[in-house]
Amino acid sequence: MCELLGMSCNVPTDITFSFHGLARRGGDCGPHADGWGLALYQGRAAHVFLECAPAANSHLAKFVREHPIKTLLAIAHVRRKTRGKITLANTHPFTRELWGRQFVFAHNGTVKSPRKLKLGRFHPVGETDSEFAFCALLAALEHEFGAKPPGKAELAEAVALHAGRIGKTGTFNLLLGDGDQLYARCSTKLHYIARKAPFTRATLADDDVSIDFSQVTTPKDRVAVVATMPLTRDETWTAGEPGTMWVFQGGRITRTLQS
Amino acid sequence: MCELLGMSCNVPTDITFSFHGLARRGGDCGPHADGWGLALYQGRAAHVFLECAPAANSHLAKFVREHPIKTLLAIAHVRRKTRGKITLANTHPFTRELWGRQFVFAHNGTVKSPRKLKLGRFHPVGETDSEFAFCALLAALEHEFGAKPPGKAELAEAVALHAGRIGKTGTFNLLLGDGDQLYARCSTKLHYIARKAPFTRATLADDDVSIDFSQVTTPKDRVAVVATMPLTRDETWTAGEPGTMWVFQGGRITRTLQS
Repeated sequence: MCELLGMSCNVPTDITFSFHGLARRGGDCGPHADGWGLALYQGRAAHVFLECAPAANSHLAKFVREHPIKTLLAIAHVRRKTRGKITLANTHPFTRELWGRQFVFAHNGTVKSPRKLKLGRFHPVGETDSEFAFCALLAALEHEFGAKPPGKAELAEAVALHAGRIGKTGTFNLLLGDGDQLYARCSTKLHYIARKAPFTRATLADDDVSIDFSQVTTPKDRVAVVATMPLTRDETWTAGEPGTMWVFQGGRITRTLQS
Repeated sequence: MCELLGMSCNVPTDITFSFHGLARRGGDCGPHADGWGLALYQGRAAHVFLECAPAANSHLAKFVREHPIKTLLAIAHVRRKTRGKITLANTHPFTRELWGRQFVFAHNGTVKSPRKLKLGRFHPVGETDSEFAFCALLAALEHEFGAKPPGKAELAEAVALHAGRIGKTGTFNLLLGDGDQLYARCSTKLHYIARKAPFTRATLADDDVSIDFSQVTTPKDRVAVVATMPLTRDETWTAGEPGTMWVFQGGRITRTLQS
């Protein structure tokens, strides 16, 4: 199993605080020591940092925290392998281009019979059930809409539909980004918080690190964070309902769909 | 225009020395200050570091040099834009999955009428002629071989053929990697050196930095480095002939093809 972290904002924001909390679970507080990854969008493309080593004591993860890249949309993952060796090719998040956008995907859980999924023109580079499921999801979207992307609402509905179908017999908590919307499907376990003014202080659940968000934000800022388990101990996170998918854009939930 | 750097080895090797020389040309000794990228393969997947800022004074480029990741195949690039804004999506090297391998591509030059190229199912994320040409090259390979990759020799011949066609009316110096072979097409300017025992000392052309390779290698090691211009001042580099393509594997040239 693994832990997921996603962020959607209306102004470029760094994910340092949340990523520090997640990284602590990568081999330090948590058992997720088989790799980590962080994707930070700039427009339709993303910086992607990957390492098949524990995040907790990674030089690269430390560098990323100390030299934050501000972004409107980010997806991170710490991995505890269930299927597939500890290799770069098996490290989340995975990326593929579709419709001239870089799609980014991370998964928590296990998908049943991944080799029976229809993958279209997408071929897994590694051996994880997660990457097979990602390829199947993109193949279904491309099959449905062809060479041109649909509108936001239609795309969100299609993601919810196909993710629900692919994950039906397994555990398929996922984060998917397309540079614009962040799709967060809850199969068993997912939480989110949407921060906005008045901003307050928050303390990590896994470390004695706190931040006063009112000091680093403006009243117009909105930041939504979604994670497998709440990352802070003094804020109220909303638990996802199994079989639903949240869609985030610009730091707020724009849709909640059955999935 | 831009500068290219590629490396092919028979044992995992770090590219630190050559990358330091290249990075110096990215906004310090050279005019290539509009971004840089470095792809380091691990198997069929690659670590990809990208930044749309000068390499010469980049914290990330410094980090990568100070925490080297050993690899059998690497591609790097420093950019001076001719077409396309300074954005992450326009920063080389570009990557796409084909046949379950991550292909990596970097380009020096300008391709004429990129929007007339046939791109198949590959859609550019940015606006550079380079990414259009990369998409066209992969589309041609997929069109020729379908869903299954051909053997090494056949693939090399197809890359040479299609790269020659795409680059015929422009300037199309390129590096392409597939996790196994490194393809290096010379349109106007490209050089390589293949280092093997007995290893000697080498000094960067752009900095007073030298390395005694005999201290960091074993007698069986082979490392081929290809770059737009020679990176060292005390070794003999071989200049490419316009209209040819070298193929490297395991630290040596395996083929030289018309292209």
